[in-house]
Amino acid sequence: MLGLMQDWPLLSYKIIDHAAIHHGTRKVISRSVEGPIHTTTYADIRARSLKVAKRLDQEGIRLGDRVATLAWNTWRHLEAWYGILGIGAVYHTVNPRLFPDQIAWIVNHAEDRIMITDLTFVPILEKIASKLATIERYVILTDGAHMPQTSLKNAIAYEDWIGSVDGDFEWRFFDENTAAGMCYTSGTTGNPKGVLYSHRSNVLHSLVASAPDMLGISSRDVVLPVVPMFHANGWSLALTTPMMGATMVMPGAKLDGASIYELLNDFKVTVTAAVPTVWLMLLQFLESSGSKLPYLKKVVIGGSACPRAMTQKFQDNYGVEVMHAWGMTEMSPLGTVCTLKPDYADLSGEARLDIQQKQGHAPFGVEMKITDDHGREVPWDGKTFGRLKVRGPSVARAYFKEAESAIDKDGFFDTGDVATMDPHGYMQITDRSKDVIKSGGEWISSIDLENLAVGHPKVAEAAVIGVPHPKWDERPLLVVVLKKEQTATKDEILAFMQGKIAKWWMPDDVVFVDEIPHTATGKIQKMTLRDQFKGYILPTAEAAE
Amino acid sequence: MLGLMQDWPLLSYKIIDHAAIHHGTRKVISRSVEGPIHTTTYADIRARSLKVAKRLDQEGIRLGDRVATLAWNTWRHLEAWYGILGIGAVYHTVNPRLFPDQIAWIVNHAEDRIMITDLTFVPILEKIASKLATIERYVILTDGAHMPQTSLKNAIAYEDWIGSVDGDFEWRFFDENTAAGMCYTSGTTGNPKGVLYSHRSNVLHSLVASAPDMLGISSRDVVLPVVPMFHANGWSLALTTPMMGATMVMPGAKLDGASIYELLNDFKVTVTAAVPTVWLMLLQFLESSGSKLPYLKKVVIGGSACPRAMTQKFQDNYGVEVMHAWGMTEMSPLGTVCTLKPDYADLSGEARLDIQQKQGHAPFGVEMKITDDHGREVPWDGKTFGRLKVRGPSVARAYFKEAESAIDKDGFFDTGDVATMDPHGYMQITDRSKDVIKSGGEWISSIDLENLAVGHPKVAEAAVIGVPHPKWDERPLLVVVLKKEQTATKDEILAFMQGKIAKWWMPDDVVFVDEIPHTATGKIQKMTLRDQFKGYILPTAEAAE
Repeated sequence: MLGLMQDWPLLSYKIIDHAAIHHGTRKVISRSVEGPIHTTTYADIRARSLKVAKRLDQEGIRLGDRVATLAWNTWRHLEAWYGILGIGAVYHTVNPRLFPDQIAWIVNHAEDRIMITDLTFVPILEKIASKLATIERYVILTDGAHMPQTSLKNAIAYEDWIGSVDGDFEWRFFDENTAAGMCYTSGTTGNPKGVLYSHRSNVLHSLVASAPDMLGISSRDVVLPVVPMFHANGWSLALTTPMMGATMVMPGAKLDGASIYELLNDFKVTVTAAVPTVWLMLLQFLESSGSKLPYLKKVVIGGSACPRAMTQKFQDNYGVEVMHAWGMTEMSPLGTVCTLKPDYADLSGEARLDIQQKQGHAPFGVEMKITDDHGREVPWDGKTFGRLKVRGPSVARAYFKEAESAIDKDGFFDTGDVATMDPHGYMQITDRSKDVIKSGGEWISSIDLENLAVGHPKVAEAAVIGVPHPKWDERPLLVVVLKKEQTATKDEILAFMQGKIAKWWMPDDVVFVDEIPHTATGKIQKMTLRDQFKGYILPTAEAAE
Repeated sequence: MLGLMQDWPLLSYKIIDHAAIHHGTRKVISRSVEGPIHTTTYADIRARSLKVAKRLDQEGIRLGDRVATLAWNTWRHLEAWYGILGIGAVYHTVNPRLFPDQIAWIVNHAEDRIMITDLTFVPILEKIASKLATIERYVILTDGAHMPQTSLKNAIAYEDWIGSVDGDFEWRFFDENTAAGMCYTSGTTGNPKGVLYSHRSNVLHSLVASAPDMLGISSRDVVLPVVPMFHANGWSLALTTPMMGATMVMPGAKLDGASIYELLNDFKVTVTAAVPTVWLMLLQFLESSGSKLPYLKKVVIGGSACPRAMTQKFQDNYGVEVMHAWGMTEMSPLGTVCTLKPDYADLSGEARLDIQQKQGHAPFGVEMKITDDHGREVPWDGKTFGRLKVRGPSVARAYFKEAESAIDKDGFFDTGDVATMDPHGYMQITDRSKDVIKSGGEWISSIDLENLAVGHPKVAEAAVIGVPHPKWDERPLLVVVLKKEQTATKDEILAFMQGKIAKWWMPDDVVFVDEIPHTATGKIQKMTLRDQFKGYILPTAEAAE
């Protein structure tokens, strides 16, 4: 027997409808790419989104067609998203930090029909335009006055483009499982993979993300998403913020400490979110200028692990609550947020920081488990680590144009991370599953060893990889870059580590190198490193044979 | 093109799974019907819910079967809900405050197969049991030691009932639109109507209700739902509270001021919810005992309009924020909550109270409109009133066993209320649509006139009904019960009202009576009153003819 409730599909554009009706005068403030601060409202954003929708419709864009955006966070980008959503097309956010060839590959793979972009990226696009066979038109997010001379096909200034239509348009109606957005993950192996969000997954994710134990955004908040809309579905802030009716501040192209501080201060921002690198720049600016953060209440830090010292500085020096968070492009992206449940809420000092170093706990709608190599669940004791697998309505089940399912028979998606879960459900990433060292059936965290090794005063950087071993399958090899003008011996480094980890975790060898290979985004390229040390014979391996 | 996200149906029992996993040690504290305070946890609630599910399954209860609960808010009632939900059966909450014949009618109409009830209601059920043809077994929410002698068919103590099975059971899997819960509305006309919630509507409603601008419940809250689970889906608190992982305090059978105060104080309750009558009792207790409310932060007041003085007392005397709320059984039930958007957040004193007298604003997922007699939308100016119509995923589209749709061609449900909407989306109920007086094509609010009339020092109670009028269609007749030992004239009453309302709103006549008819739940029976004054000739009508 079915319930007798209304059939009201979860369509993402209902978010901007709600914002326009119930929070119509709420401001959306942007640092424009052209320079000046620009102010609009949710009511106007919606009105102009309707023009985007009408114009896209006129250009022949249909249900399921992909429209690329290669753009900073501004009101125009937001309008473009909702306009695209409103006709059932798919916003495909492209990351400008990728190599131009990767951008071309992604745009071609997605078969994007229109490219909406910022002035900043016109030169990059001109270079690769000849490769972008599916793009029929380039829309530059600016007005006629700022429109550059460009060779880009059918290039038009956004303001002229939407200026040619009135806003007399009705959002299209379709199934809530219709594709809504697309974001490629740049894995360390193979080609990027396209994650395809649905209207349903976006709406559910935004509802979940707004809960008091997650981002906890209210209409009285002023939210500054420093994290770009092209980074992992923009951490859903372009959806969650208007859904909750909060004021929105958009940073445009300037993410440096001084520029972010200016926005935080001038517009009395209460909640902000970005990766640690951004906060490092802000903290440096605050320290050098002696500025304070009197309005900011919460800073969401994700994308990579938040250093303990960063949490401490925000909280102790600036009175800002740090919310460590973890997610993935494949998770829309929110997985966990480290707010304090009552079990931990009364902790202070180091004990509190210990918990805040964890990535946090999952909301309703994100199921998690950690498993061993045989797929068996391992205990939630805060110590045992296993492969982290997730399930939920906003988690991917497959990638665009890939025949193979991305989930196992129980419906779980393997995050590729290795993590511990504590008895209160707090997750902490300990490693990537391809980097963990499997020694005699037990796992050793390469990251834990690296973090320990860089604590040595002479060590500039450290990487740990597993090297084949006849007895133990794999054993850890520690690769070290010393600080300038320093020398050290293997025994010196190992002596430093002794007693701080289990005996069987001790690296079997230490190698000193001049440089460790990195990806474009600054992560250690363990695969290259493993290639580099292919065939390396550990001293303990020789002894065992 | 569809998105590629996981198929993860919104099933209500996932709420207790989440609570047990992520908030497993969080307490659920109840005043038992037997007397003592009982404490358990979400992990235990889930474990015992699995036993309920297994036992129901053994008794042959299948997908879609209705299981009645006639019970107070306790941990056992909560377990019963989740056990019922877990096999895809339907919890049907029955309101014990109805007349026994109405209870019998409802149980028969729902075709309930099992009746789960409290010790309190055994005598009532014994009286009507012979009429309850579909009930196969009565489960009394107590243990063997407290089990009474009873003639009820196959009666068994709940603890013995679930004690006979182990908890080795897996929740059933089914479509998210499967019926989950049922609650009858006791309209003022005709037979009660059954609203049938789905798993999807329950889950979406709970997500929406938890948002910071709505109930704003976090895991650090301690929530006391005084509102019974049988009142309008229990205001969804039996779902929202565990979903958010908050501590739960259940009042059992004792809703008097002293008992509620004891729970608020002993268990440091931070959020509570009930109808104004309950809060009147609490405030009286606080005043007479000189007690304070040091832990309570928010009180949700709904079910009927919250008197201004009540809001003022809670806020000024006790430092508790009042959240006026409005909803309907047909809305799962949340429609609006009166938290303050930034537009109003800085108001204080009388201006703040003016806003707080409104029923509040709708969350994402509740669409509203107000229309005139021709179905045309009227402006959101805070003055014009119209029929309030709603649409959303947790709003009813039809009633159980009724062939006719409950929604119009645009999918809107007519609430039967007349309301104003202000420019910021704040709704205020001005009348019931069947009670509003239609004078010359314009509407007059009977409630506004009544509220004004009872302000007269000699008036104990007042009711206003529309009486046919040859020129104006209808004109208001004011029916007054005077306070004991008082006398007054028509002119005296009207003179008091003069200048406080538009001239054309002035009642055409005043009639003094000894008593105004009421429903079982204390509301004025306007229909009976209209019958009573059928054929009444207004002096102005005589003049017009």
